[in-house]
Amino acid sequence: MYSFNNDYSEGAHPKILDRMIKANFEQNTGYTKDIHCMNAAKYIKELIDRKDVDIHFIPGGTQTNLLMISASLRPHQCVISADTGHINVHETGAIEATGHKVVAVATRDGKLTPLMIQEVLDYHTDEHMVQPRMVYISNSTELGTIYNKAELSALSRFCKQKDLLLFLDGARLGSALTSNSNDLDITDIARLVDAFYIGGTKNGALLGEALVICNDNLKQDFRYIIKQRGALMAKGFVLGLQFEVLFEDDLYFELANHANVMAEKLADIIKQNGYSFYVDPCTNQLFPILPNKVIEELSKDFLFSLQMKLDTDNSVIRLVTSWATKPASIDAFREKLNNLNN
Amino acid sequence: MYSFNNDYSEGAHPKILDRMIKANFEQNTGYTKDIHCMNAAKYIKELIDRKDVDIHFIPGGTQTNLLMISASLRPHQCVISADTGHINVHETGAIEATGHKVVAVATRDGKLTPLMIQEVLDYHTDEHMVQPRMVYISNSTELGTIYNKAELSALSRFCKQKDLLLFLDGARLGSALTSNSNDLDITDIARLVDAFYIGGTKNGALLGEALVICNDNLKQDFRYIIKQRGALMAKGFVLGLQFEVLFEDDLYFELANHANVMAEKLADIIKQNGYSFYVDPCTNQLFPILPNKVIEELSKDFLFSLQMKLDTDNSVIRLVTSWATKPASIDAFREKLNNLNN
Amino acid sequence: MYSFNNDYSEGAHPKILDRMIKANFEQNTGYTKDIHCMNAAKYIKELIDRKDVDIHFIPGGTQTNLLMISASLRPHQCVISADTGHINVHETGAIEATGHKVVAVATRDGKLTPLMIQEVLDYHTDEHMVQPRMVYISNSTELGTIYNKAELSALSRFCKQKDLLLFLDGARLGSALTSNSNDLDITDIARLVDAFYIGGTKNGALLGEALVICNDNLKQDFRYIIKQRGALMAKGFVLGLQFEVLFEDDLYFELANHANVMAEKLADIIKQNGYSFYVDPCTNQLFPILPNKVIEELSKDFLFSLQMKLDTDNSVIRLVTSWATKPASIDAFREKLNNLNN
Amino acid sequence: MYSFNNDYSEGAHPKILDRMIKANFEQNTGYTKDIHCMNAAKYIKELIDRKDVDIHFIPGGTQTNLLMISASLRPHQCVISADTGHINVHETGAIEATGHKVVAVATRDGKLTPLMIQEVLDYHTDEHMVQPRMVYISNSTELGTIYNKAELSALSRFCKQKDLLLFLDGARLGSALTSNSNDLDITDIARLVDAFYIGGTKNGALLGEALVICNDNLKQDFRYIIKQRGALMAKGFVLGLQFEVLFEDDLYFELANHANVMAEKLADIIKQNGYSFYVDPCTNQLFPILPNKVIEELSKDFLFSLQMKLDTDNSVIRLVTSWATKPASIDAFREKLNNLNN
Repeated sequence: MYSFNNDYSEGAHPKILDRMIKANFEQNTGYTKDIHCMNAAKYIKELIDRKDVDIHFIPGGTQTNLLMISASLRPHQCVISADTGHINVHETGAIEATGHKVVAVATRDGKLTPLMIQEVLDYHTDEHMVQPRMVYISNSTELGTIYNKAELSALSRFCKQKDLLLFLDGARLGSALTSNSNDLDITDIARLVDAFYIGGTKNGALLGEALVICNDNLKQDFRYIIKQRGALMAKGFVLGLQFEVLFEDDLYFELANHANVMAEKLADIIKQNGYSFYVDPCTNQLFPILPNKVIEELSKDFLFSLQMKLDTDNSVIRLVTSWATKPASIDAFREKLNNLNN
Repeated sequence: MYSFNNDYSEGAHPKILDRMIKANFEQNTGYTKDIHCMNAAKYIKELIDRKDVDIHFIPGGTQTNLLMISASLRPHQCVISADTGHINVHETGAIEATGHKVVAVATRDGKLTPLMIQEVLDYHTDEHMVQPRMVYISNSTELGTIYNKAELSALSRFCKQKDLLLFLDGARLGSALTSNSNDLDITDIARLVDAFYIGGTKNGALLGEALVICNDNLKQDFRYIIKQRGALMAKGFVLGLQFEVLFEDDLYFELANHANVMAEKLADIIKQNGYSFYVDPCTNQLFPILPNKVIEELSKDFLFSLQMKLDTDNSVIRLVTSWATKPASIDAFREKLNNLNN
Repeated sequence: MYSFNNDYSEGAHPKILDRMIKANFEQNTGYTKDIHCMNAAKYIKELIDRKDVDIHFIPGGTQTNLLMISASLRPHQCVISADTGHINVHETGAIEATGHKVVAVATRDGKLTPLMIQEVLDYHTDEHMVQPRMVYISNSTELGTIYNKAELSALSRFCKQKDLLLFLDGARLGSALTSNSNDLDITDIARLVDAFYIGGTKNGALLGEALVICNDNLKQDFRYIIKQRGALMAKGFVLGLQFEVLFEDDLYFELANHANVMAEKLADIIKQNGYSFYVDPCTNQLFPILPNKVIEELSKDFLFSLQMKLDTDNSVIRLVTSWATKPASIDAFREKLNNLNN
Repeated sequence: MYSFNNDYSEGAHPKILDRMIKANFEQNTGYTKDIHCMNAAKYIKELIDRKDVDIHFIPGGTQTNLLMISASLRPHQCVISADTGHINVHETGAIEATGHKVVAVATRDGKLTPLMIQEVLDYHTDEHMVQPRMVYISNSTELGTIYNKAELSALSRFCKQKDLLLFLDGARLGSALTSNSNDLDITDIARLVDAFYIGGTKNGALLGEALVICNDNLKQDFRYIIKQRGALMAKGFVLGLQFEVLFEDDLYFELANHANVMAEKLADIIKQNGYSFYVDPCTNQLFPILPNKVIEELSKDFLFSLQMKLDTDNSVIRLVTSWATKPASIDAFREKLNNLNN
């Protein structure tokens, strides 16, 4: 039984574990003030060509989102998100638990546009309503789609005009940036948003996200915020060391690219069998539309999740590949699906 | 330069890393629903002789405290803590950030007694004041002291009488239970408190605390609370696997005992040099009172923290040993201190 | 310039001010523990035929909503509301500021049905999402519509089955219960919901809402919650005395009925001029659809608010009558509108 | 049975009720945007000789405190208060409910000094602890004491040096400023603090506090904060009108002065009977030390509260006079106490 359920089923890339063993008896400074965090931050700053950013290493994605959002907003301010956004749906009200409303906008593909945001601004006019202050986007989105350079630039310009902060959730940033459809460089992102994070958990680390704060106004006292929410790891070097390995060379992008290549193969198999997709595949999450009978058969050999029922006979499932997906698993899927259709 | 600064300077016990490598390409269920978490929970339940508890694996201690406390209290209720308690001093207002007052009680040794709590109850009489509902204690405390069986039993009886919940922070529970002065068994603790946690971060794990909820009334929906605060790890098996290794045999207590033995040796060296302690040493944290000149000399070879200035000439420092402290480091300390006094 | 902007433009019914003057030099117990609050509670309990409820007098509606909701929910739980609900739109995120998500449901008429709620339940399935626990409705709604007995009974049954709490915002309860379309008795409401409030501010009081808690499980320590949120008035008797006057005889319902009668006259005038309504009028809020030119002319003599633009030529406005609306103001409106159409 | 329990037992000064009746059928703009609030703000600005302040009318004191404090602090920041401060003791954790720790400092007389605050600063050194950002003081304090000009100036200078905000709770500001011991002018206060409020509830209004924000940085979007916490009254003119009456001439200070004069007479009677005070009396709250037997006898004719037990035979009680205290009540007290001592 092979799982296409998610991209966090396996441990870490072996290079990470090797380094961990090598460094195991070093004595490190606590709370992410160690040499590994410093190195990892240096590598990332070089990569994004920005020396002036602040980089923090956070154990998980929900934490990173709630830290960045709650630290940036005053009590009466809200964050705007696609209705499919992770903060709106899959974080158990984590943002609201810090006191802030998430204003959700309906989208077909999980992506926000200036027009959608303008509608929210038009509606929120006075002190009887929350005040929009931040826009939250994901790249890749929860539907596996990505922002291209024109789209992100337009969003960025619009947000600056309207005095809105732009925050990009990069839990799957690697997969977005190594997509065949991508024309964004990570330096573009660092230039266009106020803050973003580079996801480690879903791209080969045991745990950890690298939060990059680009806007000076959002930097002050951020370590207090991290500590208060319980996200300042005593053994912070465990995070730093992993990002050191991922970014001292191209490993981070190699792993993401592998996930994309595996997904592309899966997508081809599905297309060759005559099926279409709920959204066009371009990263490591696929949302094929399949007959319920096919889904039932596939589920005998593979784990995956049901995204939604489309009509009485067909449903959308979600298949996720990762840095650890083996070609043999793709082959097994091909064989199974081909057999079902012969 | 050897660090006695804390017990989380090194990585993890090698057995943990070995297991991690062995299990690295397994596909595990996410969010602590994997086989390793199940095994670890089983071992801990056997150890504490309670099958009916709920066990959750949480990345860190501040998180564990804020999760357990905020999940247990209604909005108007407070938690009582020693003024030295970690939640009162060293968590950047994490409990208040969840909406609850920490009512702090002055103590000499970091330990609470029924009498101290009764005074808080006497003072908080009506709806104009917060309502005491939970008592937070640490074992060992932030001053390295421990509760004996009579003390914990008395606290437990008193709390039950007064309808107060009793929560024990066990960030350094291993060191407490393997202390020469200890007469408490972990089964006693599981019987006497409503919830407690078994610290991994400070006793040989890369990260992780095992929260044990003994009181049925505190169990419901706890996973929602964990997720909302960003403490539900996608790769939860990284936590489970570590506790599996620590509790499948006696490793957890062996590591804690080693830290205590090293501390005892340090304490003997200090006593032999004619110095006394701010509180009697019995676990892996020592608080010797030393002349400032001695402290200055020691700090050339060793890292440690200043606890407080006592008078113009003397101060209290804090020395911490761990599962990773090597006898050679103790020897170096002995040599240095002996030299200073000859 | 006469204002149909809202039902809180004027002071209080003269009987209330008379009583206030009469009682002015009494010495009353503070914090709503006075004789007037006791009397008012007694009258309300008789009216709703429930001796076992708890009644609290709160300065305002937003406070009453946030108190009742935040006191009833655990941190991970949410409240379900129509998207037009006051808590979702017009309270500046007051509920989120207490940590809870408002899950909003699209409606045409501001009213929730079991089917709508079932869809929310179907969607919120596990600990990665907030847990639905309370349903918030308003009667009359923000669109002036009301729940009939069959509808409220169905909601109540459904909520009990699903272990959901049902809370009714009665800021305009008087207008709902004295509507010609109404078949609900206030005793029905007290039987069918877990908590509701009887609005004073919008029905002839200077300020104040009477919160009625029917469900025993929601009663405990509620005065602590009131105090903590700053809603326990030192001179609570100012609230009690007003509700005493409103409920010692039928004054409350007489005032509401007057507002409805005035609204009915307004509605007839609008219909006679050939215009229709966005929602059928039945209480003291009217939402006529008028040509923009007519609206522009009316706004020269009357104050009212624009609800929404319907198309390029027509808009929906909101007209509100109150206990203080004078027949002469209705006549002026008739004359103006008739003139515009001749 | 006459009550010296507090200064909010009676209704409002008759001039206020008269004006309320006179204005009753005016149609006012909602939410404190009416002409009465504007007039009241104008009078107060003239009085304090500051045109640039923002003035908000809030229903109650606990609300005013929690609004001002929570609007001024980022999540990790705390407010420093005397341990006797209202926010620390008598607001049911209202500040903590907004997420912020109150760091309490022990005092003998309820007053803070720069030295005390420096000690808090010395202790809070890094991101593992909350960050001090605001100092909360009351004038008069909860012990009836007042700050003189030198003391408030020193505090103000110190706070500016240390980048701390200074907020003055003026629930009983009238009594402080009309004390015989006072040398502060209200223009001094407006110059020396970042924000303060002028209490109405305890000085002749039915309800209401006038919050004055002097520091430009604290002004932005404050109405959003008010609305979110449920403190924006629909009939805000009820607040404005009262402050209009209190400040269109010297009524506010006349009422406060009356309370002080009555208190002085009470204090003289107590002194003449040979008793002393826990703190020297200078405003409308007295804290005499009396034999328990005398207290028992007094309590047969008068209501007052017990402040604390001093020793087995003597206790401190709290007597409060007000704008409504009649000389006859003072005479009755004199007669009673004199009789007890003859």
